[in-house]
Amino acid sequence: MSKIVIALGGNALGNTPEEQMDRLESVAKIIVKLISEGNKIVLTHGNGPQVGQIALAMEYAHQGNVNTPLMPFAECGSMSQGYIGYQLQQALQDEMERQKVKKDCVTVITQVLVAADDPAFQNPTKPIGAFYSKEDADELAKTRGYTFVSDAGRGYRRVVPSPMPIDIVESRVIKKLVDDDTVVIAVGGGGIPVVKNDKRELLEGVDAVIDKDLSSALLGKLIDADILLILTAVDKVYVKFNTPEQKGLDVITIDEARKYIEAGEFAKGSMLPKVEACIKFVTSPEKKAIITSLNEAAEAIEGNTGTKIVGGN
Amino acid sequence: MSKIVIALGGNALGNTPEEQMDRLESVAKIIVKLISEGNKIVLTHGNGPQVGQIALAMEYAHQGNVNTPLMPFAECGSMSQGYIGYQLQQALQDEMERQKVKKDCVTVITQVLVAADDPAFQNPTKPIGAFYSKEDADELAKTRGYTFVSDAGRGYRRVVPSPMPIDIVESRVIKKLVDDDTVVIAVGGGGIPVVKNDKRELLEGVDAVIDKDLSSALLGKLIDADILLILTAVDKVYVKFNTPEQKGLDVITIDEARKYIEAGEFAKGSMLPKVEACIKFVTSPEKKAIITSLNEAAEAIEGNTGTKIVGGN
Repeated sequence: MSKIVIALGGNALGNTPEEQMDRLESVAKIIVKLISEGNKIVLTHGNGPQVGQIALAMEYAHQGNVNTPLMPFAECGSMSQGYIGYQLQQALQDEMERQKVKKDCVTVITQVLVAADDPAFQNPTKPIGAFYSKEDADELAKTRGYTFVSDAGRGYRRVVPSPMPIDIVESRVIKKLVDDDTVVIAVGGGGIPVVKNDKRELLEGVDAVIDKDLSSALLGKLIDADILLILTAVDKVYVKFNTPEQKGLDVITIDEARKYIEAGEFAKGSMLPKVEACIKFVTSPEKKAIITSLNEAAEAIEGNTGTKIVGGN
Repeated sequence: MSKIVIALGGNALGNTPEEQMDRLESVAKIIVKLISEGNKIVLTHGNGPQVGQIALAMEYAHQGNVNTPLMPFAECGSMSQGYIGYQLQQALQDEMERQKVKKDCVTVITQVLVAADDPAFQNPTKPIGAFYSKEDADELAKTRGYTFVSDAGRGYRRVVPSPMPIDIVESRVIKKLVDDDTVVIAVGGGGIPVVKNDKRELLEGVDAVIDKDLSSALLGKLIDADILLILTAVDKVYVKFNTPEQKGLDVITIDEARKYIEAGEFAKGSMLPKVEACIKFVTSPEKKAIITSLNEAAEAIEGNTGTKIVGGN
């Protein structure tokens, strides 16, 4: 019986609310099995496609003058937490009903603190929302202060920073809930990014995207979880990926993981942040991090598959 | 020291995210004063303008073929809970920081159960979203099964049912949190409406709007709150409202309230559901319900203003 933070990819959820609910029903089967075995679960999730659609719709409607306001990206993120959280908690509640598991499940709207002086703010890299013509992009850059990059012939796209998570505003409540055996959905999309004002300790939303695996690792530390389970498209972490010498990793130490990172084994924006999140989480011999696919999740918790990242050298 | 459910109107929150955050800062000052006096607070809120904007933007973008999916109204409601909840919890957290009150605060995404055979489903009355031409409305009625009504020369508008809340799926967690002294934001917009499938006890979202005061009253009962405080535009409930004999009510019993309702004193869709919600909440001599304005909230809790609705005849 373990306390587990499970991080689910936003890309795995499909492109429409119906597709998403279908896929979440499959996710729920696997999560509820883990719950029925006595594990305490916090589920986190990505929101890339979903917040993209929300930001796009809000921007398009605002430009179209249909009497809807300009919506900041942090607020769009909060909407995506409500949307995905609602479907996820309903899927879990329904599956618990089917499997006769009696637990409560809630979604907690979660703000994640980043440093106002994080260097990422000087170098926005995460593309969000619609494609624009050069003229429109220049205009928006001037009027709203957005940064744009040219995207492989498809036009210009807004980019926002991806700062490091340094605290999770609602972590105490999340810990209480999960310790009390409630299934919690939190830190959706890596969390709503907030900074603290200069002199006063007041929170304020910022336009940014926080890596959901890094936020999940931080949450795992703050709530003293035993396991960080990152679910992705592959069953294991591979070295020499997509070459004839490709090799799946079973168990690696954080020192070995660091060496693979230095050797450039893991793709930026893909496997790299996942392995980095695992390294951040595994701060003692009692903690382990696992990277595997959704279908292998239960087997990986048993130690039979997936890539396990453990402490030491 | 009391356990209080405070219901805030969605119309009081303004029309843009900036306006909303401004107004929530004023709301927070008053709520945090009540918290600092030792009261345990669950805050509920309306979402009429906000979910209207979200539904409108999602529909407009979907029709405009910008690659965003058709979003069901229940999902739009979940987005509005995330959006308003995020801003509200941040405003409360910031005000607690200013007033040096140390409490946690979270938003819980909340589903509210309605009966699939509620007669309201036969008679949709709540207008939502955009105005359409007769042709477009007829087309949407045919392809999506929507119901439309003609709206005073401004075109055709979709209407959805407003069924009665019968249970709150996340009420146990909300009760635990507030009893443990966490400030909880819940039941946003009256809750995301869900029904249970015919044979199996599985939840499913429906296109409907639940009255937020009725949901707040039900939540109050389920979490065993002492006070239901409904905040609205006026300081008191009035009889003979807007006539020379207008008279503000200080304390009335639920029997007196019922008589005023029978006499047609309260406007449908306005004061009537608020008074009805109070009657539903006050089921014993220990419970009281108060209707007043935001600015009078603290004084009303002290018993110095507002309209108090108490048990008995």
